[in-house]
Amino acid sequence: MELADKLRQKIDNKTKPLGALGKLEKLAFQVGRVQNTLSPTLQNPTIVVFAGDHGIAQAGVSAYPQEVTYQMVLNFLRGGAAINVFCRQNHLALHIVDAGVKQDFQPQNNLIIAKAGYGTRNFLHKKAMSKQELDFCLAKGAEIVKKIAENGCNVIGFGEMGIGNTSAASMLMSYLCNLPLEKCVGKGTGVSEERFLQKIQVLQKAQNLHQNLSEPLDILQTFAGFEMVQMCGAMLEAYRQNMLILVDGFIATSVFLVAKFLEPTIQQNAIFCHQSSEAGHKLMLDFLQAEPLLHLDMRLGEGTGCAVAFPIIQSAVNFLNEMASFESAGVSKQEA
Amino acid sequence: MELADKLRQKIDNKTKPLGALGKLEKLAFQVGRVQNTLSPTLQNPTIVVFAGDHGIAQAGVSAYPQEVTYQMVLNFLRGGAAINVFCRQNHLALHIVDAGVKQDFQPQNNLIIAKAGYGTRNFLHKKAMSKQELDFCLAKGAEIVKKIAENGCNVIGFGEMGIGNTSAASMLMSYLCNLPLEKCVGKGTGVSEERFLQKIQVLQKAQNLHQNLSEPLDILQTFAGFEMVQMCGAMLEAYRQNMLILVDGFIATSVFLVAKFLEPTIQQNAIFCHQSSEAGHKLMLDFLQAEPLLHLDMRLGEGTGCAVAFPIIQSAVNFLNEMASFESAGVSKQEA
Repeated sequence: MELADKLRQKIDNKTKPLGALGKLEKLAFQVGRVQNTLSPTLQNPTIVVFAGDHGIAQAGVSAYPQEVTYQMVLNFLRGGAAINVFCRQNHLALHIVDAGVKQDFQPQNNLIIAKAGYGTRNFLHKKAMSKQELDFCLAKGAEIVKKIAENGCNVIGFGEMGIGNTSAASMLMSYLCNLPLEKCVGKGTGVSEERFLQKIQVLQKAQNLHQNLSEPLDILQTFAGFEMVQMCGAMLEAYRQNMLILVDGFIATSVFLVAKFLEPTIQQNAIFCHQSSEAGHKLMLDFLQAEPLLHLDMRLGEGTGCAVAFPIIQSAVNFLNEMASFESAGVSKQEA
Repeated sequence: MELADKLRQKIDNKTKPLGALGKLEKLAFQVGRVQNTLSPTLQNPTIVVFAGDHGIAQAGVSAYPQEVTYQMVLNFLRGGAAINVFCRQNHLALHIVDAGVKQDFQPQNNLIIAKAGYGTRNFLHKKAMSKQELDFCLAKGAEIVKKIAENGCNVIGFGEMGIGNTSAASMLMSYLCNLPLEKCVGKGTGVSEERFLQKIQVLQKAQNLHQNLSEPLDILQTFAGFEMVQMCGAMLEAYRQNMLILVDGFIATSVFLVAKFLEPTIQQNAIFCHQSSEAGHKLMLDFLQAEPLLHLDMRLGEGTGCAVAFPIIQSAVNFLNEMASFESAGVSKQEA
């Protein structure tokens, strides 16, 4: 009997009505298949948050000034942000990566310095980064994950911080899903109606400038932030290491789109942790035919969706490993 | 300034865009209001599972034979059921109550014997229980919760086990929400199409027999199981003790409907943990204007929705208590 059949049988023989654990059953099945075992485990779960600045932030697309990227990284390093709280709660290791913040940080615990530059260029005028910077970021992201895998981690989630990066994500989405910008642009961290219209205009202008893009890596180089490219390299390496990949919200999913174009089977390792309230995220998930675990109207980034969803994934693994079967518990099965 | 305003301010000053934690923010606000504090805590969280047998099970409304109630209680007591797994994972205390199972149990740890009888009567022929049994169950449920509250618990979830009890819940729903049976009947633990039609017919017959019911307690006495009435008494006592009340799926919500008719303000303490895939649950939640936390297509009962959702509630409390404010973290606020 194939492992898939054995997994299905193990799930169905648990003391519950057939299918009664819903998405937890699908999740248990997926995790078992990825790990090629009837008794999967989640080892050293880890969140990596990549941070970087965006040239496009100068075009007034965000509700926050650009220095918030730097300030929030300091907040991560001091343990005061939402992602810190949720990682502590759920016993997730947390690493912060300076992928390209405008300011420099003192070396310190939990900070990985992988700076590709002091923010990207403004894609209203030119490509966000050079080919060399792109390659550096892909390699750095991979290197970071490889080290984490060597420490025994088999489940990894990725977060980001970068003022302006919902704009970058909207561009990736528009090109890769072949959707008009209006469907891909949301209010990000909460811009006003006026600024929202301005954001669409700005991005439309950028789209007019960068035509005839079709290669995923070219699209990435043109619009993404350093933190997004490092996340892309990280996702690809996580797949090579056969880790479970926790996908967060709008920005992380736009990066996942690129990773999937480069590595079409990566999705078998991906768990879509939540559906963001950022307009467009649902469309991206639909495009991927992905079913998100949580619908909590969150739109914070930082990997918070992954961290909050983690206990649900643990529940899926635990029921598979710990629940009694009808036979072992002496419970009568469903009547025909 | 009122506590509600202070809570709103505290939430809004956390280092995140306004509203970016979505339902977690609403939850933190609710918990703070219930506990009348800016720094709420979840103390000794507990799940109580009430079990009882139903006379209506003899009418062939379930996919499982009636003795599964007894067998599953044994499974709970041995730690092999889904609710055991999720309570262990999330450090929730678990109590099992024999509210009226057909068979007797040996006294043992974690089993509370509160037997009102050896199963209810078949409501196809007469009321499920006497007024005396109803009162006994309401009092027992309250007594159990009071003791748990005395041990310092301030958040409690309720589960149930009783073959046939989705039928009882459908009856409560139909009378209390004033909805036709077809909208209130689902496939329970997974009956076949044929048995599903039979279930509707059976319940229609019962509805024809029991006309002119309008008092919630009368409806409860007519259709509910002992485990459901004890849960009702338990919810009412949890409210008197100002505990947070975790509401599970279809059956628990039907019981909550009764509790709310008796105590209209009880909902301020209630957290609706998930939306069951049992048809009808969504309609009941709509009737209550309740927003469930999880949508995982679960339909298992036992309080499993409460146990799986618990970490999300903890996340809400934790961000409120632990996240830095814009001021304390030195992060620039949103631009006007």
